[in-house]
Amino acid sequence: MLEIQSWGETLRLLVELAGTAAFALSGLLEAARKRLDAVGVCVVAFLAAFGGGTLRDLLLDRRPFFWVEHVELLWGVLVLCGLAMLFLRQRHFEVTEKAIQWPDALGLGLFTASGVHLALSDGMPALVAVLMGVTTGVFGGVLRDMVCNEVPTVFHDHRPYAVCAFAGGWLYAGLWQLDLPGWMALLACLAATAGLRLLALWRNWQLPAWRV
Amino acid sequence: MLEIQSWGETLRLLVELAGTAAFALSGLLEAARKRLDAVGVCVVAFLAAFGGGTLRDLLLDRRPFFWVEHVELLWGVLVLCGLAMLFLRQRHFEVTEKAIQWPDALGLGLFTASGVHLALSDGMPALVAVLMGVTTGVFGGVLRDMVCNEVPTVFHDHRPYAVCAFAGGWLYAGLWQLDLPGWMALLACLAATAGLRLLALWRNWQLPAWRV
Amino acid sequence: MLEIQSWGETLRLLVELAGTAAFALSGLLEAARKRLDAVGVCVVAFLAAFGGGTLRDLLLDRRPFFWVEHVELLWGVLVLCGLAMLFLRQRHFEVTEKAIQWPDALGLGLFTASGVHLALSDGMPALVAVLMGVTTGVFGGVLRDMVCNEVPTVFHDHRPYAVCAFAGGWLYAGLWQLDLPGWMALLACLAATAGLRLLALWRNWQLPAWRV
Repeated sequence: MLEIQSWGETLRLLVELAGTAAFALSGLLEAARKRLDAVGVCVVAFLAAFGGGTLRDLLLDRRPFFWVEHVELLWGVLVLCGLAMLFLRQRHFEVTEKAIQWPDALGLGLFTASGVHLALSDGMPALVAVLMGVTTGVFGGVLRDMVCNEVPTVFHDHRPYAVCAFAGGWLYAGLWQLDLPGWMALLACLAATAGLRLLALWRNWQLPAWRV
Repeated sequence: MLEIQSWGETLRLLVELAGTAAFALSGLLEAARKRLDAVGVCVVAFLAAFGGGTLRDLLLDRRPFFWVEHVELLWGVLVLCGLAMLFLRQRHFEVTEKAIQWPDALGLGLFTASGVHLALSDGMPALVAVLMGVTTGVFGGVLRDMVCNEVPTVFHDHRPYAVCAFAGGWLYAGLWQLDLPGWMALLACLAATAGLRLLALWRNWQLPAWRV
Repeated sequence: MLEIQSWGETLRLLVELAGTAAFALSGLLEAARKRLDAVGVCVVAFLAAFGGGTLRDLLLDRRPFFWVEHVELLWGVLVLCGLAMLFLRQRHFEVTEKAIQWPDALGLGLFTASGVHLALSDGMPALVAVLMGVTTGVFGGVLRDMVCNEVPTVFHDHRPYAVCAFAGGWLYAGLWQLDLPGWMALLACLAATAGLRLLALWRNWQLPAWRV
């Protein structure tokens, strides 16, 4: 049993690292497209990778921030930015974008679950907890786009992203109500969110547009 | 006496609901104009309705947030978004904008008063309290415009809006100093702010422009 | 010895006032260029002057905010905005921009040192403290540009600014480790940051661009 748990922990860590790297890379790509300088590239990558979780910690009044407890995450993204500026070329951009779809979807699921979990642990009502989960998963990308002077992609590209996190978040909140063990709820939320997201990309699902 | 107080409470609740709905609708309209998808429409409506109060609570370090204590407000705005996406058509936009001028002005007054009140209760200096009131009333709209990639309307349309809240806020702070009962200060701030705003719209008052 | 300390305090206060005024003026100029109205001018000046320190206090969970403890700073910027709207003309803009380069560089150094100092006092790791210092120095300008619907200058003008603060911040953190008296670390950070910034402007140094 203990072995399973330690396996679970390792898996969780791997997903967190992959998700953080994918979020940071999405920031890097956008900053490069907007021709920002070295400082801009780093800041946008940091915002994309840590913005959602920081906003969650701020709203839930949690200190220290997760990147203070795990300062190696900051170093990791800093190194990633340096490597990307040395080796990433424009013709790699599209390849990179494809390559991060999977870790990005997994990261979305994990970060959503973490937001819902922390909010429920603080005794928040279910709707608030789910919105906190969506915020954790999505607002890194929102801040990334706002700082690059764009309308956030997640608000106007008509592809389900926040909606997947919303569904996965309700699933987590429901399983929490049933008193299931934490890792099962986490796994279900992760699978549902990432699964929905990848399915939506694959089948090219569209969100309903505003009817005029 | 008790009857008056309960009447006052009911009135206050009605103004709060009307103001929140008006703020949310202003977000809905802007999101629809920018052709955001369903997710974008909801987020912008939430930001417009709850952004100012959330920033106030964050700056004053108040937890739980007012929308955690009154989670029915979140549900209400969520339902409003759904209804609007079903029934609101483009040709209704101008009508809606006119229709929300009154509740928007009342909401501005009430939210300003709430910001000043909470800051003064925390022992803040008068200027800080007044600025906190203006922030509560105005920053929902600022966040709404920022996320839609616009310069905030309230900063460049030359129509008095924040200025009305500023005046109403000083009135509240002054009456607080005189130890008047809370409901009188609230009523005065509400009347002054909303009255100034509606007068400014009616007489087409303009803020001084930057002299070149 | 006491005399030196009181001299130091006076000097520090002067730098803080000059830096705050320079930051506020940078906000005023940008707001004037974007043709904002009186409200917009004031808000952008406030954001530029107080945004970085407020974000620092928010992230470090420090209350009261520094502008609550020193409410005279708020009054000062308010008066500055009034005077600027009366007396500043478009043909003065370039002169003003030149004139604030020195106080702006000094302010950057001082605010960076203050951010690093407060974060280290809270027991943060060095990297977090340095980033907090950079945030304190730089994010006022970032918020100013975001609210004016521009990509923040500091992210794309290829001139070292945040990088100077980053270097100065590490210097402060290093001297802190050596247990030097606070005023020496402050002075070194101030001199290094402002010196690097002014040297970079004078020699026209460029940050490395993204290699395509």
